[in-house]
Amino acid sequence: MTENIVPNATIKRLPIYYRYFQFLKDEGTKKISSGELAEGIKIDSATIRRDFSYLGALGKRGYGYDVNELVDFFKKLLNQDRRTNVALVGVGNLGNALLNYNFSRTSNVRIAAAFDIDPEIVGTVKSGVPVYDMNEIKEQLELQQIDVCILTVSSNAAQKTANMLVDAGVKGILNFTPIIVNVPNNVRVHYVDLANELQTLIYFLDHDSSLDHE
Amino acid sequence: MTENIVPNATIKRLPIYYRYFQFLKDEGTKKISSGELAEGIKIDSATIRRDFSYLGALGKRGYGYDVNELVDFFKKLLNQDRRTNVALVGVGNLGNALLNYNFSRTSNVRIAAAFDIDPEIVGTVKSGVPVYDMNEIKEQLELQQIDVCILTVSSNAAQKTANMLVDAGVKGILNFTPIIVNVPNNVRVHYVDLANELQTLIYFLDHDSSLDHE
Repeated sequence: MTENIVPNATIKRLPIYYRYFQFLKDEGTKKISSGELAEGIKIDSATIRRDFSYLGALGKRGYGYDVNELVDFFKKLLNQDRRTNVALVGVGNLGNALLNYNFSRTSNVRIAAAFDIDPEIVGTVKSGVPVYDMNEIKEQLELQQIDVCILTVSSNAAQKTANMLVDAGVKGILNFTPIIVNVPNNVRVHYVDLANELQTLIYFLDHDSSLDHE
Repeated sequence: MTENIVPNATIKRLPIYYRYFQFLKDEGTKKISSGELAEGIKIDSATIRRDFSYLGALGKRGYGYDVNELVDFFKKLLNQDRRTNVALVGVGNLGNALLNYNFSRTSNVRIAAAFDIDPEIVGTVKSGVPVYDMNEIKEQLELQQIDVCILTVSSNAAQKTANMLVDAGVKGILNFTPIIVNVPNNVRVHYVDLANELQTLIYFLDHDSSLDHE
């Protein structure tokens, strides 16, 4: 795999491919044509072909895709053969919903620890996940070998908390706050901005649907 | 604006631009250089220039960007001069968190109605939003002129509920379930897959950071 040229957009589709081939395997499907694949995941064939060519995967002309082969391929690519523990920081409404969200149903990711400053919930267990005091974050992340955090604090605590995460050695932050946080270059931040998602959807509905397709 | 050629990736960044210029306006900034803009929103200058050229926006060489002008420009482009009401379907943990999530703080979108099948919560008001029975969805959406829904039901109810939304005349669905739903071509579905987001972030951390940048 020639890593350096895989575009971000392709990488973002990897979990979709992985999950769909896993689904096919679970229901006993052995192979699938490229047309069926496109229809099943609602991504056009040309995009799929381009993605797969970046990855060095893996269809035979006139045969289609071998489901078991592709499950193994994407599993390895996404490191799904090992479990990844992550932490959640900020146990408010959204934080609680994410603790309850069954990430491990469709991925090998698990929230193993949560952090908050509220003495009422520090020391409790929420949806099976222990809640620690923010003061313990550096120690706990080291102990539990966690370097990815989900950030669900309030907007006004976002930057301050991000600083604490960086200080604790975190390498990746999935940021649910609408704040763009400043972190060193060696820390990667992905944004899940729920208002953005809604606005973008509404934009598409309001404008000509002849825009190129999702 | 030559609508037909604006790429999806650009459209997805519109809310980011809008929000940042709004933030600058709120703090009294009048103009900003393209370098400062790139730094502030963590998007590289070349991408910003390309995006703005698609949109027909709006910087003067050697001057930078006029903040007020750009707030107005993006506000109009995103229809932020009118409020959009949306509905939420499925008032579980995630649904409740989204009802509580202050979309209107950073956008002109508001959740105006929620729907569920649980008789215990139908008829209640959650975070200021009335919860209706699913049976009333067609009537309520018509009455309230809502054509965008947030889908936060459980996975096994996703397709069935999507069918009901289509039947009720919904044009856009923001789907938080990990299920790819089948809908007619005139209905647009955007996916927010939280496990995907985590997997993608972890993929980036595990692989060479010489991949092109977010």
